[in-house]
Amino acid sequence: MRAVDIVRKKRDGRELARDEIGFLIREYCAGRIPDYQMSAFLMAVFFKGMTTPEISALTEEMRISGEVVDLGFIPGRKVDKHSTGGVGDKTSLVLAPAVAAAGVTVPMMSGRGLGHTGGTLDKLESIPGFNVRLSSAQFKAQLAAAGLSFIGQTENLVPADRKLYALRDVTATVESQPLITASIMSKKLAEGIDGLVLDVKTGSGAFMQRREDAESLARAMVALGKACGKRVVALVTDMNQPLGDYAGNALEVIECVEMLKGRGPADLATLCEDLSAHCLVLGEAARDLDEGRKLYGATVTSGKALDKLREVIRLQGGDARIVDDYGALPAARRRLPMAAQSGGFVQSMNTQEIGLALCVLGAGRETVDSIIDPAVGIQFHKKIGDAVAAGEPLCTIYFNDEDRCRDAMKRMTEAYVIGSAAVERPLLIKKTIG
Amino acid sequence: MRAVDIVRKKRDGRELARDEIGFLIREYCAGRIPDYQMSAFLMAVFFKGMTTPEISALTEEMRISGEVVDLGFIPGRKVDKHSTGGVGDKTSLVLAPAVAAAGVTVPMMSGRGLGHTGGTLDKLESIPGFNVRLSSAQFKAQLAAAGLSFIGQTENLVPADRKLYALRDVTATVESQPLITASIMSKKLAEGIDGLVLDVKTGSGAFMQRREDAESLARAMVALGKACGKRVVALVTDMNQPLGDYAGNALEVIECVEMLKGRGPADLATLCEDLSAHCLVLGEAARDLDEGRKLYGATVTSGKALDKLREVIRLQGGDARIVDDYGALPAARRRLPMAAQSGGFVQSMNTQEIGLALCVLGAGRETVDSIIDPAVGIQFHKKIGDAVAAGEPLCTIYFNDEDRCRDAMKRMTEAYVIGSAAVERPLLIKKTIG
Repeated sequence: MRAVDIVRKKRDGRELARDEIGFLIREYCAGRIPDYQMSAFLMAVFFKGMTTPEISALTEEMRISGEVVDLGFIPGRKVDKHSTGGVGDKTSLVLAPAVAAAGVTVPMMSGRGLGHTGGTLDKLESIPGFNVRLSSAQFKAQLAAAGLSFIGQTENLVPADRKLYALRDVTATVESQPLITASIMSKKLAEGIDGLVLDVKTGSGAFMQRREDAESLARAMVALGKACGKRVVALVTDMNQPLGDYAGNALEVIECVEMLKGRGPADLATLCEDLSAHCLVLGEAARDLDEGRKLYGATVTSGKALDKLREVIRLQGGDARIVDDYGALPAARRRLPMAAQSGGFVQSMNTQEIGLALCVLGAGRETVDSIIDPAVGIQFHKKIGDAVAAGEPLCTIYFNDEDRCRDAMKRMTEAYVIGSAAVERPLLIKKTIG
Repeated sequence: MRAVDIVRKKRDGRELARDEIGFLIREYCAGRIPDYQMSAFLMAVFFKGMTTPEISALTEEMRISGEVVDLGFIPGRKVDKHSTGGVGDKTSLVLAPAVAAAGVTVPMMSGRGLGHTGGTLDKLESIPGFNVRLSSAQFKAQLAAAGLSFIGQTENLVPADRKLYALRDVTATVESQPLITASIMSKKLAEGIDGLVLDVKTGSGAFMQRREDAESLARAMVALGKACGKRVVALVTDMNQPLGDYAGNALEVIECVEMLKGRGPADLATLCEDLSAHCLVLGEAARDLDEGRKLYGATVTSGKALDKLREVIRLQGGDARIVDDYGALPAARRRLPMAAQSGGFVQSMNTQEIGLALCVLGAGRETVDSIIDPAVGIQFHKKIGDAVAAGEPLCTIYFNDEDRCRDAMKRMTEAYVIGSAAVERPLLIKKTIG
């Protein structure tokens, strides 16, 4: 078997056999197929796509390229949630403690922010002392004890994805649905979960800006998960504006703690409730969504979800006082409101641009090597459909560096589009697939 | 400027600017753009193609990637001929001496055989002592003195093409018209020629099997050549069967010498006459094709063309006796005729398969490292449209190794298709573009 023949076969639109995909991934990981053949293959996949059996074979070969976590020793269902990423997308910090508090084990393996999107690990690390670098043994022990661990992808888990993703990033082959599907699902399936709730974002701040692309990705991932014997549900949700009222790492932690105290913005509340309810159903803690929503509400109202968050912060070396004293979190030295230049209604928010403004401030990464400032961020006073008077603040910038603030504000001015027409608020949960 | 952005732009079907293509080629040749980005780019070009300005920029950047030959010190027009390759395709050895004998300078830079197609350099090297590795200075001096040099592509000429071609070969990106066009034309334009006659082959033994692909490539190359201020004519010619009656290096040299003695098969004669006539018109030695054909005929009849071949063989260190004594050429120890199993007409010849039979015998290269046996080859007694009786020989195999002969004969049996229907002979010169 030769790599060049497999590249040609894909290039010519013929379906690859399972053993051809296996050969490609195994030999690539072993360093016996060079990057230049793999990148030509990835570009051919970009143009010709992959059939469901091909995606399934690719996912499986990637999954078994490294350590595969076995959580069979923990009784009950293990459920995770994965989001395709966005701005202010902080549901994990609410959902995970709530679902774990209701008795479903949540092995939450998260990522870091990159480009305009934020990452759960960065948010958690704004809590002083919080350690997301658990060993595989620590991860399992904490899961067994507390029902929840937050960690990053370990070195040993799906090394094929790490290698492929680095290559895709520099060869313009990231935006390929089969490759995205296999990348996400291989990692999730290697975690040892039984069920998975997917939050597939669509809109101006999402990777899949067009709704049909997001739905198509959601369907592909659900089909693949089911083919692998897992329970998978996908929600296609709105990312035409930031989720909640804050973006920025420590600011989002506060917003999540507020949420677990029963306060906070309606959009975030709705999405946390629905995603959690799906997790509870997949985790067999609730018979249906209604029961799931009620159970979620109960764990919040009773304070059990907040207690679970405290426990996990403490177990992972963090300062759990932040739950009751936000002053223990890093805070930006200055803040500056940004006023609307004209009155009317917020027509749209260029959420990718907002994500880039956050990067400029220091809340996100322009490259993988960028250093995060956990304190900075943006508070959104107005969102799509809101009425605004000229001079009224649209948002407030939390910053530590004046030049960066000026740059971010310029971007925010462009991101907010104000017009005279009344505008409907975007529908938050656009579709449920599963 | 970043390579990944250029790859993405091409991937998305947007036209690249001249400086983007320049950046890509220069930085790649300098080793500052890695193979894996270039191969992704090449695959994107395979799918999205290139506009004429893009191909022109690519050709120009490749052309100036190394030494550019200046033949301005030699008075008069310099004309070359290039064929896209086939089986038994030996016109260079007839055309070049004839055109040079008529007073047009022919700087002939040729290639070696690869896969099922033969190469002019391999044919010349079957002449004992013949040296195709001239330095740039020797090349120019001989051109000035004799009006003709046969050489291989020097190390310094278009290094970008050498590097790109090696990458295309292992990433399934050879079969891309813009890349083929730029590869051929950059080398031809770097030779210092004023005019170029292209022989674009089509049919079962050609790289462009479909006639529309060959015509499209021919049009692209003519347009590009003209855009670069050169006189270019392309003939689209038949490669549904071998050209002439022999294939194999020394055997083809003999057939060419016979041709220059006024003998030899009609198809080869017609093509040599027409290609030469076009060269003579571009070289301003003839006013039109008719005059060109007459002039070609005169140089052959007068023996001037044969004298030119003798002179060039001697100048390049070869044994010129071979012109008058074919016994001075390497000869195969054995020959074996292959009989038709049934009678009828030759319906078709799988010429790619014939090329592979020649490879098996040792006349061609399966890989760039294969060693050529100059003596072996095949004589074709029957070609498409010929009537044949059962038991009558279709071809004769000239061989040195019995196992190889058996293998080649098996392939030849499959290559010849005999049927009862009368068949028209394929049209040799299908189209002239220019």
